[in-house]
Amino acid sequence: MSKGITSRKEDYSQWYNELVSKADLAEHSAVRGCMVIKPYGYAIWEKMQAALDKKFKDTGHSNAYFPLFIPKSFFTKEASHVEGFAKECAVVTHYRLKDDGTGNIVVDEDAKLEEELIVRPTSETIIWNTYRGWIESYRDLPILVNQWANVVRWEMRTRLFLRTAEFLWQEGHTAHATAEEAIAETEQMLDVYADFAENWMAVPVVKGKKTETERFAGALDTYCIEALMQDGKALQAGTSHFLGQNFAKAFDVKFTSKEGKQEYVWATSWGVSTRLMGALIMAHSDDAGLVLPPKLAPIQVVIVPIYKTDEERAEIVELVDQVVAECKQKDITVKFDDRDSYRPGFKFAEWELKGVPLRITIGARDLKNGLVELARRDNQSKESVSKEGLSQRIEILLDEIQHAIYEKALKFRTDNITLVNSYDEFKEVLEGKGGFISAHWDGTAETEKRIKEETKATIRCIPLDNKLEEGQCILTGKPSTQRVLFARAY
Amino acid sequence: MSKGITSRKEDYSQWYNELVSKADLAEHSAVRGCMVIKPYGYAIWEKMQAALDKKFKDTGHSNAYFPLFIPKSFFTKEASHVEGFAKECAVVTHYRLKDDGTGNIVVDEDAKLEEELIVRPTSETIIWNTYRGWIESYRDLPILVNQWANVVRWEMRTRLFLRTAEFLWQEGHTAHATAEEAIAETEQMLDVYADFAENWMAVPVVKGKKTETERFAGALDTYCIEALMQDGKALQAGTSHFLGQNFAKAFDVKFTSKEGKQEYVWATSWGVSTRLMGALIMAHSDDAGLVLPPKLAPIQVVIVPIYKTDEERAEIVELVDQVVAECKQKDITVKFDDRDSYRPGFKFAEWELKGVPLRITIGARDLKNGLVELARRDNQSKESVSKEGLSQRIEILLDEIQHAIYEKALKFRTDNITLVNSYDEFKEVLEGKGGFISAHWDGTAETEKRIKEETKATIRCIPLDNKLEEGQCILTGKPSTQRVLFARAY
Ligand SMILES: [Zn+2]
Ligand SMILES: [Zn+2]
Repeated sequence: MSKGITSRKEDYSQWYNELVSKADLAEHSAVRGCMVIKPYGYAIWEKMQAALDKKFKDTGHSNAYFPLFIPKSFFTKEASHVEGFAKECAVVTHYRLKDDGTGNIVVDEDAKLEEELIVRPTSETIIWNTYRGWIESYRDLPILVNQWANVVRWEMRTRLFLRTAEFLWQEGHTAHATAEEAIAETEQMLDVYADFAENWMAVPVVKGKKTETERFAGALDTYCIEALMQDGKALQAGTSHFLGQNFAKAFDVKFTSKEGKQEYVWATSWGVSTRLMGALIMAHSDDAGLVLPPKLAPIQVVIVPIYKTDEERAEIVELVDQVVAECKQKDITVKFDDRDSYRPGFKFAEWELKGVPLRITIGARDLKNGLVELARRDNQSKESVSKEGLSQRIEILLDEIQHAIYEKALKFRTDNITLVNSYDEFKEVLEGKGGFISAHWDGTAETEKRIKEETKATIRCIPLDNKLEEGQCILTGKPSTQRVLFARAY
Repeated sequence: MSKGITSRKEDYSQWYNELVSKADLAEHSAVRGCMVIKPYGYAIWEKMQAALDKKFKDTGHSNAYFPLFIPKSFFTKEASHVEGFAKECAVVTHYRLKDDGTGNIVVDEDAKLEEELIVRPTSETIIWNTYRGWIESYRDLPILVNQWANVVRWEMRTRLFLRTAEFLWQEGHTAHATAEEAIAETEQMLDVYADFAENWMAVPVVKGKKTETERFAGALDTYCIEALMQDGKALQAGTSHFLGQNFAKAFDVKFTSKEGKQEYVWATSWGVSTRLMGALIMAHSDDAGLVLPPKLAPIQVVIVPIYKTDEERAEIVELVDQVVAECKQKDITVKFDDRDSYRPGFKFAEWELKGVPLRITIGARDLKNGLVELARRDNQSKESVSKEGLSQRIEILLDEIQHAIYEKALKFRTDNITLVNSYDEFKEVLEGKGGFISAHWDGTAETEKRIKEETKATIRCIPLDNKLEEGQCILTGKPSTQRVLFARAY
């Protein structure tokens, strides 16, 4: 196993690509824009899914499944939605192939669909068309449904996990009797995402609202969580939309209120995707490979034995069996790497590359003294500990690692939010250290657009906990009441 | 909530459709052939997924994800596979829509794909094209991968769960160094499916092999489990295929053996789908609604309170809190139906319709005597029991119900396997009681085809535990060495 990953300093983007490939996370497929998520990468995604799914259920949501295909006409029903989504997408036009008589397989022109079907880029339209049949009275509300699914948005330039034509995600779609309740749901799910990002992914995030320009097509308000990557670029890690009555009106979904009146239903939608894999990788990993927070690591502890004789091996195995059993009780996943076709050094490098949080080396000689070596992946520190109480020590260390990874990312994020008060300073920081730039903005789409065109920086969000302060727009000098967060972003 | 389901005797097919709809399991969507799986139906599917996924992992498999789209040319690479799958399928020909200038959204003809993409009907081709990059030497084998995914096979006549254009499934795809190992895997996964069908779904199945005619396109051998529905029709509940080296040859997947030779890899694939939902419903349910085996019921116990005063209610709630807490410890899912907008009778009917295995009625008056009522969904029996030790009684009863449902289905299956020795008898049984018919067959595809054309019965399988016996083909009178199982099937 040759590591030889390009360093982050040398070429961050190349480092990322090589890491995704060499750590066996994902690869490009034969279909342009579509990725193959390999078993090790998928195991991380499954851990993300399990944690998120539990949070959704704990907040009262159920899963359901809606069609992969959406009739083309559905996209024209919500005016702004069509602008945003009915463009770069996969269009199904036929439903049969045939042999052309010479052994070639061709599209059967007799099997042309009357109306083209679009592979879902997001499911608001088909879901609201369905909800019309589910909702009659206020007793049918709220509807709190989530879907785990694949979606497709055609992309010309793709990057594994970060931007792919097909990706996996979850999309929550809820229906409410009042605007207040829908807004509360939108905010609740943003909190769920932030909690997951910080306490599972160990990635600190800024909670905020998008500007009108950056809103989801069809939303009255888009909330988001924004994370910072090690190269100083931001990454939108999740969004939660208050959709008002737009989709209810587009699909004629009304309910009879307690007062007996016919009213349109209020909607939210919220989602995170396999993009989170990209965020997880870029936030923590280093030049030696992946760094995974214990809560999302498919293998939390790896044990590498070092021995010469069968007798030595037997002594090691005895301890391993005991540790594995104790860890299982504590829901800690341990892998005993007893492959005899590889040397310990090779194994060390492999598990380091794959980001296993804790490595235990059990050497026959140390074991005679009752000692084993623990090596942390996150800070590369090692300690020699007694084999007594090993599983307790493992449990404590894993928790420490989880927190340490978060603290490190938080420090980096804190160090990389820069307040600027002029456009020159803004451009200087952007070209130099990067990161989030907190600056005054006059609130207009024109200014936002010009800054984006001139610097490639976008307004990531208006932080929810923003304090109001008087200031002047860095571009126009016009009055402003609060700072917003700019950054170049993935 | 009006029940009024057509009875099975009246119209079995109508009964099924109404049940799926009224029990809130699924519905047809606006896209022909595609279903919406509603939250209650999806919750059952999630329980199936969880049980199966655990079995897959316990037998050493990992999950991964492969692209939704398959290039058209891939289907031509394996000769028999193209016949079977590259026909009725969804074809993506374009990747962009545009506004035609008059506000209509039309397909952008400038965005025509060079090669059409097929929405996967099954993934052997794209997966084996991927495995080529994963396999170099015997050390890379076996590959034991499963995928949970949606697939599309265009269907003109659809039925919810049983036959839909889009459905959800899992597909395992494994790669091995030897034929023996691949065959052992094929058989192992058939056993996994049979174990799941019998011990979770409570549906007895016959394990067997398909005839050449009924084999999966591209397989050397197709193993299957066959279940019997209450109307006497069979349902194929899962298949496991030994693919030989067909896909390895088609996609040039070789490995260097221990002896240093280049050899083609051996393959298996195996799958079950949301069709299992149809089997589950049809195997056990009755004219009053669903009957769900406890192991797959989203709600295992429902508690309905009957009271008049707040004081009475408080006493009931006290007991409920205790029972719910005790059941949670035992991983038993309890719902306390305390809606005060519905009468108890309405609730009884609703939970009966939805197949909740056990209902507990807590009436304030009985409670004064320390008693509550337990009502089983499967056999409609009721018992009055002491509130002491209630959760223990619940646990025992749920296990009894699980077994009783299986035993009932097994008795029905046993009663409906009929041995026949002539074609007249064959047709008589088929038109009369239906079920599986065990008969001699001369082993030719011609005979199989003629019987199918004349009677609509197919050979469901050659049972694995078949005893050899001399006999004569019911159609041709030619010699036969064993009986096979015929039936009309879903
Ligand atoms: Zn902690
Ligand atoms: Zn039992």
